[in-house]
Amino acid sequence: MKYRIGLVGCGVVGRGFLEILAAKAENLKAKHGFEAKIVAIVDKLKGTAVAPAGIDIKKVLRHLGAGKSLDDYGPAKAQKAPAPEPVDIIGRVEADIIAELTYTDIKTGEPATSHIRKALQTGKHVVTSNKGPAALHYRELAGLAAKKKRQFRIEGTVMSGTPIFTLAERGFAGNEIREIKGILNGTTNFILTKMEIDGMEYAEALALAQKLGYAEADPTADVEGFDALAKVVILSNVLLGGSLKPTEIKPRGISSITKRMVGEAQAEGCRYKLVAYTRRAGGKIEAGVEPRKLPLSDPLTGVMGAQNALTFDLDLLGPVTIQGAGAGKLATGDAILQDILAIHHDLR
Amino acid sequence: MKYRIGLVGCGVVGRGFLEILAAKAENLKAKHGFEAKIVAIVDKLKGTAVAPAGIDIKKVLRHLGAGKSLDDYGPAKAQKAPAPEPVDIIGRVEADIIAELTYTDIKTGEPATSHIRKALQTGKHVVTSNKGPAALHYRELAGLAAKKKRQFRIEGTVMSGTPIFTLAERGFAGNEIREIKGILNGTTNFILTKMEIDGMEYAEALALAQKLGYAEADPTADVEGFDALAKVVILSNVLLGGSLKPTEIKPRGISSITKRMVGEAQAEGCRYKLVAYTRRAGGKIEAGVEPRKLPLSDPLTGVMGAQNALTFDLDLLGPVTIQGAGAGKLATGDAILQDILAIHHDLR
Repeated sequence: MKYRIGLVGCGVVGRGFLEILAAKAENLKAKHGFEAKIVAIVDKLKGTAVAPAGIDIKKVLRHLGAGKSLDDYGPAKAQKAPAPEPVDIIGRVEADIIAELTYTDIKTGEPATSHIRKALQTGKHVVTSNKGPAALHYRELAGLAAKKKRQFRIEGTVMSGTPIFTLAERGFAGNEIREIKGILNGTTNFILTKMEIDGMEYAEALALAQKLGYAEADPTADVEGFDALAKVVILSNVLLGGSLKPTEIKPRGISSITKRMVGEAQAEGCRYKLVAYTRRAGGKIEAGVEPRKLPLSDPLTGVMGAQNALTFDLDLLGPVTIQGAGAGKLATGDAILQDILAIHHDLR
Repeated sequence: MKYRIGLVGCGVVGRGFLEILAAKAENLKAKHGFEAKIVAIVDKLKGTAVAPAGIDIKKVLRHLGAGKSLDDYGPAKAQKAPAPEPVDIIGRVEADIIAELTYTDIKTGEPATSHIRKALQTGKHVVTSNKGPAALHYRELAGLAAKKKRQFRIEGTVMSGTPIFTLAERGFAGNEIREIKGILNGTTNFILTKMEIDGMEYAEALALAQKLGYAEADPTADVEGFDALAKVVILSNVLLGGSLKPTEIKPRGISSITKRMVGEAQAEGCRYKLVAYTRRAGGKIEAGVEPRKLPLSDPLTGVMGAQNALTFDLDLLGPVTIQGAGAGKLATGDAILQDILAIHHDLR
């Protein structure tokens, strides 16, 4: 089957996805009977290209790589004066699937939520790696998708392409998930690793993370636990049936952890990790983010550097831990491909 | 949908599966729209019960728990003089799915392979946790299943119910698996853990494993690597497209590892693990089992005691590690349920 796909947002993840599509087109056709045609790319900063006949992926990647605007890409040029809003293009474009890949605004979930709503309302499936809509409006959007008989898939929102939703929904079929806990922020894990292995103070390790591009100039979202919190809210609402809002929970981050505390933990055979957790307890869901001193026998203590990991506690299987990439161009681009292949698999 | 299921072999795994079905019947109906009717239980030692109207699961578990023969269970009694061979019952029984749960014979794969062949030939789906047929005859049986438009599923053959085949086939869609390596034998991992943590010599740790029921009186299959080898052959043939036979590869086990070697590794910041591996290399598949001294930064070194783990090296996602139960009544019983739910999901 051949799918018409529209990209909204074409930053790192969008380009990662396009690179994978270009490299794997033949393989995907041979192995999965899957073909894709990119019919639109819409980006607030990089412009808009709409091409019902399909955009040449390699050509558009070169175009973007040269810093040129999508407004100047090929035949789309003549179509756009004045430039329409993304949400209008999403409504009008003839596409089967919209990949929502704009930047996360965890406070409002916009403009991504409006994009997703419009796509579902106009009969498109939606795949996204954007944490905002998933953390703030999952129930509403999943409900709208069900009503429209379309899919709303979010594999890339937690642990990038490491397939935790597929694992939980398919692999754990028959199990009840009692608790999910893990390391969902690579920046803080990198900082804690550097403090322990190289004996750095917190400020020194943070500066290194910023220098290497793992942490942003304002590191609050990472180091104070807000990024991990958004992800654990998604896990709560998608996998445990909760209806939490990120604002209901106050995360605790790692900015108060000192080199001395890390050393003392080490002497006790323990290791500090920033743990995000969610569990069912007496009909309610308890979720949070906090630094914990874990014994080295805990599989989460083996997760070093920028990797992520989750331990699911299951009634039949006991604990199952999955560890893998938590970010990255190809890893997150692959999350988008996985979600699209899952739609393909269900439609075949 | 309601499925008619026949069990061939009713040891630990079969009873685990029946216990789960009894406990979760309502949940499976509500959540998955799945219902099951056990129409036959066939066991060389415990006798045979055939009941087209369905066997009362709780009653038959009490019956077996009291040490009684299935030949004396309910209305089946009158039907069976002389007792037919399992393969005849498999051919004749009106069932949608056969769960093959007899003991593994890794040299011949029998009688399980004959059971599976007969079930597929007579139009039944087959699920199994039996390593013999999967390691020796996967290609033939999967081909027969495809020809008959039935499924042949084997989640329980490697890492019990820890869902590694679902993960690889669904979660890694779009990725190429370059290498799979891991800890696939809980007995040897328990022995190595005891040698390191409690400073035991090999013989002492083995004796403890035997006392606790982790190792058999003749521990050869575990300690010399044959059990892990069978599993890595399955991974090679199912996930890497290989056609290896267990007899083509000579495993290396842990019987030559001494307390002193374990201590020396520890002093170097390393840990001995019995590693099973398989990888694509120049159009061929290289697979084996050998003790390796791994640096503590390797996620596999965190796998202690009787747990199992696998690291998949993927072209897009990089390394992804999954750790979980490698054996156990409920964990393997759940593997059977997972495979049956996967068939249900595909048929809906």
